[in-house]
Amino acid sequence: MGKATKGKRRRPRVTPGMPPGTLAADPSAPRPPIHVLAYGGDGVIEQEIDDVEKIRALLPGHAVVWVNVDGVGHAPTLEALGDIFGLHPLALEDVGHLTQRPKVEEYEQKLFIVARMPNPGSVETEQVSLFLGRNYVLTFQEDPGDCLDPVRNRIRKGGRICTSGPDYLVYALLDAIVDAYFPVLDRYTDELERLEHDILSRPDAAVPHRLHAVKSDLEAFRRVLWAFRDLFTALGREESELISPNTKLFLRDCFDHTLRLIDLLESLRENSTGLLELYLSSLSHKLNETMRVLTVIATIFIPLSVIAGIYGMNFDHMPELHRVWGYPFALGLMLAVALGMLAYFRRRGWFGSSRDQGQGQGS
Amino acid sequence: MGKATKGKRRRPRVTPGMPPGTLAADPSAPRPPIHVLAYGGDGVIEQEIDDVEKIRALLPGHAVVWVNVDGVGHAPTLEALGDIFGLHPLALEDVGHLTQRPKVEEYEQKLFIVARMPNPGSVETEQVSLFLGRNYVLTFQEDPGDCLDPVRNRIRKGGRICTSGPDYLVYALLDAIVDAYFPVLDRYTDELERLEHDILSRPDAAVPHRLHAVKSDLEAFRRVLWAFRDLFTALGREESELISPNTKLFLRDCFDHTLRLIDLLESLRENSTGLLELYLSSLSHKLNETMRVLTVIATIFIPLSVIAGIYGMNFDHMPELHRVWGYPFALGLMLAVALGMLAYFRRRGWFGSSRDQGQGQGS
Amino acid sequence: MGKATKGKRRRPRVTPGMPPGTLAADPSAPRPPIHVLAYGGDGVIEQEIDDVEKIRALLPGHAVVWVNVDGVGHAPTLEALGDIFGLHPLALEDVGHLTQRPKVEEYEQKLFIVARMPNPGSVETEQVSLFLGRNYVLTFQEDPGDCLDPVRNRIRKGGRICTSGPDYLVYALLDAIVDAYFPVLDRYTDELERLEHDILSRPDAAVPHRLHAVKSDLEAFRRVLWAFRDLFTALGREESELISPNTKLFLRDCFDHTLRLIDLLESLRENSTGLLELYLSSLSHKLNETMRVLTVIATIFIPLSVIAGIYGMNFDHMPELHRVWGYPFALGLMLAVALGMLAYFRRRGWFGSSRDQGQGQGS
Amino acid sequence: MGKATKGKRRRPRVTPGMPPGTLAADPSAPRPPIHVLAYGGDGVIEQEIDDVEKIRALLPGHAVVWVNVDGVGHAPTLEALGDIFGLHPLALEDVGHLTQRPKVEEYEQKLFIVARMPNPGSVETEQVSLFLGRNYVLTFQEDPGDCLDPVRNRIRKGGRICTSGPDYLVYALLDAIVDAYFPVLDRYTDELERLEHDILSRPDAAVPHRLHAVKSDLEAFRRVLWAFRDLFTALGREESELISPNTKLFLRDCFDHTLRLIDLLESLRENSTGLLELYLSSLSHKLNETMRVLTVIATIFIPLSVIAGIYGMNFDHMPELHRVWGYPFALGLMLAVALGMLAYFRRRGWFGSSRDQGQGQGS
Amino acid sequence: MGKATKGKRRRPRVTPGMPPGTLAADPSAPRPPIHVLAYGGDGVIEQEIDDVEKIRALLPGHAVVWVNVDGVGHAPTLEALGDIFGLHPLALEDVGHLTQRPKVEEYEQKLFIVARMPNPGSVETEQVSLFLGRNYVLTFQEDPGDCLDPVRNRIRKGGRICTSGPDYLVYALLDAIVDAYFPVLDRYTDELERLEHDILSRPDAAVPHRLHAVKSDLEAFRRVLWAFRDLFTALGREESELISPNTKLFLRDCFDHTLRLIDLLESLRENSTGLLELYLSSLSHKLNETMRVLTVIATIFIPLSVIAGIYGMNFDHMPELHRVWGYPFALGLMLAVALGMLAYFRRRGWFGSSRDQGQGQGS
Repeated sequence: MGKATKGKRRRPRVTPGMPPGTLAADPSAPRPPIHVLAYGGDGVIEQEIDDVEKIRALLPGHAVVWVNVDGVGHAPTLEALGDIFGLHPLALEDVGHLTQRPKVEEYEQKLFIVARMPNPGSVETEQVSLFLGRNYVLTFQEDPGDCLDPVRNRIRKGGRICTSGPDYLVYALLDAIVDAYFPVLDRYTDELERLEHDILSRPDAAVPHRLHAVKSDLEAFRRVLWAFRDLFTALGREESELISPNTKLFLRDCFDHTLRLIDLLESLRENSTGLLELYLSSLSHKLNETMRVLTVIATIFIPLSVIAGIYGMNFDHMPELHRVWGYPFALGLMLAVALGMLAYFRRRGWFGSSRDQGQGQGS
Repeated sequence: MGKATKGKRRRPRVTPGMPPGTLAADPSAPRPPIHVLAYGGDGVIEQEIDDVEKIRALLPGHAVVWVNVDGVGHAPTLEALGDIFGLHPLALEDVGHLTQRPKVEEYEQKLFIVARMPNPGSVETEQVSLFLGRNYVLTFQEDPGDCLDPVRNRIRKGGRICTSGPDYLVYALLDAIVDAYFPVLDRYTDELERLEHDILSRPDAAVPHRLHAVKSDLEAFRRVLWAFRDLFTALGREESELISPNTKLFLRDCFDHTLRLIDLLESLRENSTGLLELYLSSLSHKLNETMRVLTVIATIFIPLSVIAGIYGMNFDHMPELHRVWGYPFALGLMLAVALGMLAYFRRRGWFGSSRDQGQGQGS
Repeated sequence: MGKATKGKRRRPRVTPGMPPGTLAADPSAPRPPIHVLAYGGDGVIEQEIDDVEKIRALLPGHAVVWVNVDGVGHAPTLEALGDIFGLHPLALEDVGHLTQRPKVEEYEQKLFIVARMPNPGSVETEQVSLFLGRNYVLTFQEDPGDCLDPVRNRIRKGGRICTSGPDYLVYALLDAIVDAYFPVLDRYTDELERLEHDILSRPDAAVPHRLHAVKSDLEAFRRVLWAFRDLFTALGREESELISPNTKLFLRDCFDHTLRLIDLLESLRENSTGLLELYLSSLSHKLNETMRVLTVIATIFIPLSVIAGIYGMNFDHMPELHRVWGYPFALGLMLAVALGMLAYFRRRGWFGSSRDQGQGQGS
Repeated sequence: MGKATKGKRRRPRVTPGMPPGTLAADPSAPRPPIHVLAYGGDGVIEQEIDDVEKIRALLPGHAVVWVNVDGVGHAPTLEALGDIFGLHPLALEDVGHLTQRPKVEEYEQKLFIVARMPNPGSVETEQVSLFLGRNYVLTFQEDPGDCLDPVRNRIRKGGRICTSGPDYLVYALLDAIVDAYFPVLDRYTDELERLEHDILSRPDAAVPHRLHAVKSDLEAFRRVLWAFRDLFTALGREESELISPNTKLFLRDCFDHTLRLIDLLESLRENSTGLLELYLSSLSHKLNETMRVLTVIATIFIPLSVIAGIYGMNFDHMPELHRVWGYPFALGLMLAVALGMLAYFRRRGWFGSSRDQGQGQGS
Repeated sequence: MGKATKGKRRRPRVTPGMPPGTLAADPSAPRPPIHVLAYGGDGVIEQEIDDVEKIRALLPGHAVVWVNVDGVGHAPTLEALGDIFGLHPLALEDVGHLTQRPKVEEYEQKLFIVARMPNPGSVETEQVSLFLGRNYVLTFQEDPGDCLDPVRNRIRKGGRICTSGPDYLVYALLDAIVDAYFPVLDRYTDELERLEHDILSRPDAAVPHRLHAVKSDLEAFRRVLWAFRDLFTALGREESELISPNTKLFLRDCFDHTLRLIDLLESLRENSTGLLELYLSSLSHKLNETMRVLTVIATIFIPLSVIAGIYGMNFDHMPELHRVWGYPFALGLMLAVALGMLAYFRRRGWFGSSRDQGQGQGS
């Protein structure tokens, strides 16, 4: 899994001292694809448009017009949209700076919401900026491809969403985005289960690195999810008439999902901390066992070595050497020393407990 | 004891982008057993029903009708009940998603409460969803079997509960559920006492794994109990007329029990952290002792080995070898070196303190 | 010192599903001794009574009647008292459940206060339940024997307390109970000073166990003292006419003492954490030193052993063996190797710093 | 990178007991350069002035007069400015004490704001004191050189800033100062990436020192950024008419940037803690591996040494020595012992896992 | 530096059950020196008085009378002062109990403030109790000698303080007391710098003890400073007419200084935690290095020992022994084994990295 802090691309590109409202334009950025879904009133109209001005014609005839822009680097498009919908320069600037935290801001006659969408297989989240107006929803994504197709299908099928206002569409989008975090966290649950298994069976040196990677990733998600929590709290307190009481009931459900995500994430974090402790305990225990093996072997054989060395000395006058019983006596002495040492260690519980620990470890 | 994070079955089954109010129906789920207890007015009526529609007939004639459903996967039953009692689709959706946190939500004319019931012998808690209406209580459980029989018996015996309203029944149910956590936490108190004993007598490699399991379990219970705390705080602030002032007095008692559970749980958590420190200190101390034994043995015998080696060399001109006193001198030299080393170690306190530590450990 | 988590007797004895207000009666409990002190008006009357009904006669004639009951297991006595003073069943139930946290609850015309009194020589605290009414104070203790005799003596001597109302008596009792924690915490200050001394002089294996016991005990007291803090905050905010503004001034003093106790306790906790770190640092340092001794000895003598071994080989053609200077050469070579190794270690600072550390440790 | 706690120069120079409003004058301080930018009305006037009194003439004719002073030690200049703008002695005292935390204080008719500007290549931040009056902004810096040139250029170019009031200038200055922290934190992101790489490839003894330095630096920035957060919260709540509602919208953007900086910084702090754990795990694992190598070698060769020693003894009666098969038998015995030990270790998984770990570490 | 928890003298001397308002009188305490400074009106009058009653005469003629008492154990003096100024018994009791936390309490017509003054060269702080009345300030100190002389001199010189009321004097005293903590914390900054230097150059066993002492001391100061923070917050919210709005502006400055002290202290605490981690990392790294040296030596020389042992065996039939090339072959074999082992270790990077680490450590 990727590392949260690596994403060079995601470093806030703030140029200190720039006038506010400066668009973070990327001269090489192509004109972004714009997708419009208009519904309520004369059925559902769906089209890809290339000229931003065409949106003006669509706005009057529909209860809700959802304009989705897949790309934020093309300054002329942003400026044109800002002109059509009357967007505040500060909000437009935030659309272009892709490191915003989820938040909600109220501007005259509209709400500006920043959300972040998880990317499958990456710890990077994609910024989604939403503008909620009286009869439109304007969304900006960093790249094409998202987790919002189920919402589009519900509109195309003409479900309940089609008889609700733009605030309900915003709810549906935020709900889809928040729920997309569940499978992401599930991947970490799986990874931590694998890690726990590995620590129990073969605690190798890769474990702390993998745990560190998981922790860094979870840390990144934690910040996003807590910001989502604040976002939904703020939306629930929002007194703007743009959000109907009924939609607030639905947003409370989103808030609830966010709380469950945070619960899940916090328990993953606790678990990864616990696994590192487990790994280190395991190393500590193995070191103890290794040292006990070394100590037992050394303590038994080094004295034997000395005894053999003594009878290997070349003194002329060593009476034992010339006795018939000398050799058996020396071997017996060695055996006695070895057995004595063994008995000493067994009395200290070094063997009994060693066996216990072997069993304990396997259970 | 089970591991909190293992329960695959409990992973939130949220399909991102689904329209809200979608029931998490399980096509293979059987029709759930429905148990009705109606009391207040014409005595106590108790029956198992198979046709949901029969409930309609029971509602008018009793002060309180308690409908208990043991299973949440059978969509037609849920829809029928939703129809009879006028349940909000979002609440019904939550009934089916079995990973809700304890919470209370107000809908028009009714309160929706989610509680979680401990399971004997498992760290998994079972979701219990309660709807409190003007003259009924509707409960959903995941599986048959619960800790609510004492409440049923009190109704059958016609106690105080029979002269109170449905809010008192909700209190009685929540009280029974909360109190069911006391024996669960007692099991962990026992396990931690066993662990402390094991750390003192034989700190084997299974200790950190067992501590990790206890911590994970406690972590899971902690989230549930803190959510219960919020639930009772919210109920205490609830201004709905569905809950009488007198019942609030009783709910304050539930809140109090939750606080005591949280106190108990936090001290178990502190204790398990302390036990891991104890275990690691114990390993660290044992390693020190092992290394001291190894060092004493090696330091005493390796020099002897060198002395024996010197007099085992085969030089032609080694005058000592031919002296009568050579052999005793060599042995004496060895003895002197060994005793000198021993004296050095004793002066450094390696033996005295070793004995002390052995005693200290046994106390 | 005892362990907080061991007290089997103190485990909350909650039977899930029991109707609220059920007295935790112990059939084998004897009739508890009841002590009455009535003052204000016609002097001080003090008597041990055996018939609860006698209290009814005492109530009208005195400004304050203090009824103290030493035992909570005798159901008939509790019921009779509940009848005389009009106690709420939930409050009476709490009197009998001896694991309550300090708290204050308002019932009609009376305040119910739960406090916990330290026991000399034990970490277990004794529950004291107080009812404050218009002209009486009713206290329940678990066992005879308490820290309230100074209060009794002040009443007998007819001090200021005799001209004040029952709220002042409650203050005097709570003050005596809170102040009884100071000597208890002093014992832990002493124990931690002894532990610090032991860690500096001989850090044996009992240290972490003793620290763990201190921490567990402090943890238990911490929960009690924080609950006391909340109790006094609640009393200070209490708008009941049962507590006069003047008495609130005195209760503010109790609150202040509780804050000082908490300060003291938190610094004891910090200190015990610091001492464990100190102990582990000390072990780590000793291990380093031990390993250095072993390494120095092994590194100096093992090469000598090899040299001696070489000249102990039995090859026919080993010219050195037959030279007159062979033996001195071999000894000289050994000496050179040993000195070289020593010089190498000295240059790495293994000896110099070792001596420094010995001094450092002694200072 | 520098160490936060080293800056002797930055120690608060508070002389206890001095009367308040005492200027922290430095007798050796030169007259500071004063730079004036006046705009709004008759175009932009920019000049370096040496006589403070000249400012009086500039004030009436312009919508905004920005007076910037590069130095705070020259008491006469401060006093003269205090006289011209009617500054409160306590505020002037704070200007001279260069260890203020970012804060905002309201005085009659003016706001006093303290900010801190990062220094390229140093952990020391430079204090910038701002006074916002009805038609002027007065700024004090410690030294010449700052990150405010882009703001000056925007004024010179006559941008939006020229048609706004002095509150907008304060916003522009604070925005430039806050944004200057982004590149500073980026340097730490880079350093932590280098550290992670070093821990994976060669975890040398410098790693903890470098991590400690990073942590100390981040700690210093953390305090500054949290104080900035409080500053912007206070400015947002400020009800003074000196700040227009429109400027508050812009200040909310500054607040947002501060939140992002804090997010970034907290994740850097988490990361550095994680890296220390990683380093220590790595050391622990290496120690285990080293000890296993030592144990395997010692356990295989020490017994061989004993066998060789036995057949090197000089007893007269050692029958094996005289057999033709004696020597091959001894060698075979040694081989058998060595292979047996190896098999034992392989069965315990010491080799298999060793190889695994080598791979694991490299991945 | 002293240890915070040692001060036996400072243990709260609370006798449980004593009536409130009991003076903690010390029968052996001498009559304390009383110093009076009266100013405002007829110039400054300064005198040491021995008869408390003389104060009565001074009170009417001056705007401010500052009575300073150096000692709190002499009960008659306290009682007489309590009589003259109408002090509440609870406040007088607190004056005598020298373990109060900084706090402010309002009594009828007066404010009672407890502050704590640092002692040069000790971690013990001295309690200073202040009573602020309409035209007097009454201060009690534990011992003669304080940090308030600059305030006295400002009065004697007839500065601004002489034209302000008693609330300004209280501010001046509190300001002098708070600022006296800056040099105290500076001493710990120095000690931590010395510790960091020692850890880098020679991490001896005294380091953790010194760090523990610093931490304990900082912990003690932390509690005092946080209580000061609460004190100034409470003073700022105080609605008593005893404190003028202008003085509140000055007290805000004190609050600010307290925040800076807390910032400083928290960063010292973070730093001392970081230094302990650094020390332990350093020990861990040294242990690794030591073990590597031991392992390399043992692994190279033990096999050589075995080879020498083999050719030292006394078998009759060992053909090699009789060959001319036998001896050179054996030596060559040894050399080959030694070089092979060295090559193996070098390939594992044990030497290269060892040298790196030596350099790393020195940098």
